[in-house]
Amino acid sequence: MAIELYASIYKEIFPFWNKISESERDFICKNSFLMTYPKGTNIHDGNECSGVILVRSGSLRLYIVSEEGKDITLYRLHKGDLCMLSASCVLNSITFDVIVDAEEDSECCVINGSAFSKTAERNPDIKIFALETAVDRFSDVMWVMQQILFMSMDRRLAIFLSDESTRTGSDTITLTHEQIARYIGSAREVVTRMLKYFANEGITEVSRKGIKILDKKRLRNLAL
Amino acid sequence: MAIELYASIYKEIFPFWNKISESERDFICKNSFLMTYPKGTNIHDGNECSGVILVRSGSLRLYIVSEEGKDITLYRLHKGDLCMLSASCVLNSITFDVIVDAEEDSECCVINGSAFSKTAERNPDIKIFALETAVDRFSDVMWVMQQILFMSMDRRLAIFLSDESTRTGSDTITLTHEQIARYIGSAREVVTRMLKYFANEGITEVSRKGIKILDKKRLRNLAL
Repeated sequence: MAIELYASIYKEIFPFWNKISESERDFICKNSFLMTYPKGTNIHDGNECSGVILVRSGSLRLYIVSEEGKDITLYRLHKGDLCMLSASCVLNSITFDVIVDAEEDSECCVINGSAFSKTAERNPDIKIFALETAVDRFSDVMWVMQQILFMSMDRRLAIFLSDESTRTGSDTITLTHEQIARYIGSAREVVTRMLKYFANEGITEVSRKGIKILDKKRLRNLAL
Repeated sequence: MAIELYASIYKEIFPFWNKISESERDFICKNSFLMTYPKGTNIHDGNECSGVILVRSGSLRLYIVSEEGKDITLYRLHKGDLCMLSASCVLNSITFDVIVDAEEDSECCVINGSAFSKTAERNPDIKIFALETAVDRFSDVMWVMQQILFMSMDRRLAIFLSDESTRTGSDTITLTHEQIARYIGSAREVVTRMLKYFANEGITEVSRKGIKILDKKRLRNLAL
């Protein structure tokens, strides 16, 4: 792909893009690769520095695996999302291994990790951006952890949506997140986040009209 | 405490200390407080911005709590360690709540969060330091998560007893079963049962004083 095309993509994604020199922008673009990963491809296996991955289309799944092969999804990345945990050479303080797979056919821009890292060392703005991206994911992972460990709020929300759908005889729940939060004794932010999680899992879909239940069976299983 | 004393402490802890101006150093010192927390004090309860906490003596425990009151220890902070997650106004991307308690009588320097934040906004080095401190803990938390999700309980307990013995330099662990259960994310009954098993195997001995490690080698083997 031509350098100009990478530049036009990065301009939209990287808040630091206009703060670095033209030669640095060129350097990043020249160290970028457009990759197409068929569904199921293992993109990163936790050991090496696979670089900074920007999702252009499709979706990636980040997860950890036990020695016995049990796996836990940390989060998913969609169009416009950035994977920083695959670039261990950029973030030295990340000492745990994650695995990244393409969950659908995915097209990604991959920036060579050491090239990105070199540029970040010279530009605090890049370094701050990389760290903030990682810290954002820290919050996601904590949320997953709390879900897994405490398993209460998602269950409560699933029960509520199931009941409400039965009650109204409709697959679409036309309440606001705020209202739902009040019903299940939670905060609006928690409901929004949980619904985002449900949407990522393909269980529900959030639209202007309300919350549409896509996978009744999985919702009911969650409510058990 | 005099500003000079804070300055002499921060010089050792903050890698950015000599990169910021004298007036900024003064500003941080003037917004610092020396706090003594008796054992058991709740220092931070997850909602507000309690500031950046530097442990001078004693130890702090960071944990998360479910609605049912179940808690999971994320990590502990000892002399020289820094708590950044208690300063939500410094790290906006941290959206989860942690609770911080003094586990022993502890003396801490606390820097007002908004003062620290203001200085960080003007100095990328401080911002990078704050983010890196948080990302370091991300790795700790991932480790805890893997322990809890993937490891069998006897192995987890063995690792905990080994680590604790190394940390305190003593063969006797003076924590209650309840406390240990909280550290390893289990229930008191489970810990008691496991310790009885360890005792039967001659690995440890439970006395009024605490848990004495009798067979270090076997304990270490269990922890592998």
